Amino acid sequence: MNSSSNLDEKSQATNIVWHMASVSREARAEQRNHKSKILWFTGLSGSGKSTLANATNYELFRRGIATYVLDGDNIRHGLCKDLGFSDSDRQENIRRIGEVAKLFIDAGVIVLTAFVSPFRADRKKARELVADSDFIEIYCAADISVCEKRDPKGLYSKARAGLIKEFTGISSPYESPENPELYIDTSIYDLNQCVNQIISYLESRDTLLALK
Amino acid sequence: MNSSSNLDEKSQATNIVWHMASVSREARAEQRNHKSKILWFTGLSGSGKSTLANATNYELFRRGIATYVLDGDNIRHGLCKDLGFSDSDRQENIRRIGEVAKLFIDAGVIVLTAFVSPFRADRKKARELVADSDFIEIYCAADISVCEKRDPKGLYSKARAGLIKEFTGISSPYESPENPELYIDTSIYDLNQCVNQIISYLESRDTLLALK
Repeated sequence: MNSSSNLDEKSQATNIVWHMASVSREARAEQRNHKSKILWFTGLSGSGKSTLANATNYELFRRGIATYVLDGDNIRHGLCKDLGFSDSDRQENIRRIGEVAKLFIDAGVIVLTAFVSPFRADRKKARELVADSDFIEIYCAADISVCEKRDPKGLYSKARAGLIKEFTGISSPYESPENPELYIDTSIYDLNQCVNQIISYLESRDTLLALK
Repeated sequence: MNSSSNLDEKSQATNIVWHMASVSREARAEQRNHKSKILWFTGLSGSGKSTLANATNYELFRRGIATYVLDGDNIRHGLCKDLGFSDSDRQENIRRIGEVAKLFIDAGVIVLTAFVSPFRADRKKARELVADSDFIEIYCAADISVCEKRDPKGLYSKARAGLIKEFTGISSPYESPENPELYIDTSIYDLNQCVNQIISYLESRDTLLALK
């Protein structure tokens, strides 16, 4: 970027017809020396999506990369607090997450989304909001018996007791990805190994360029 | 940050009980050497919100600061494309923008929002989503006669011709901020002067710390 800036040009403009100075995604990538992508984690409750997304986020942050995690904690209580768990509300929830993720990659940020996102059609719509190469679907593929044993939030117990209706894997289907960019079995690899699979993938796609 | 990272600690965990590695807003501010804020531009159509937000965004970017502009172009066609212009839809539009802005400041980004946002109650709700010091309301205070003369999108002409209903300033009220952090009269200052008022404000609040 030329540090003389185009503000100097702008100052010659009248204040009636101001010109636009915009910052492109490419300019941000050049300044930060990394590209922006959506890392879309999908899988059953307890499959490790949120933990893996946060651990990957931490490793990327440690390398000086602009990142952010969208998950139930910051979405369901905020942007999507008006939505419930009906089919149409679940669809709208995933639609909004896809749109917000798109804003983040436009801002030059590698954004990691950690939601069950059980339906192929909804994930496909999120993918179609951006260029195909910008959307990296990461399937956290633990067997439901493993997830149910982990049950970190006690949700499977509640679902088995009938206290939660339409719980994915128990009383509502999970449509596994047919062709995810990454298939990670979180029941056989430890957390570091899982993070490394993701980092290696990003490196192989030239997403993380050599830091200045 | 300790570059040995807490991933090493995590790798000692079993893959049944994974621990969370999170990145705080404070850690991001420390790494980037600037704080994150919402710069909420408000004012009539044609008052210069979008132009001033984009020029400020450019100047901050030039300084290596993480920034992003939310405006009609990237919100109305995406996240809020399901919303119209009824009172309740306008409220929901501003609510979502406030929630998304909150996510951006959590991600360590200075986010600039450029929407008419005519109602005090809606702006107050957006402010209340975050700490008061995180919300910088910037009133672009050009007289409506100036805005109508500029009419960059030809909207005033259409509103006068009755082709747009409930147009702010013509057939729908604009409730000007009573106590904005910044009052900028875009009809008497040129663009550079307006940008400098904002940068000076941020510097006076230690938002932009000395760059490494």
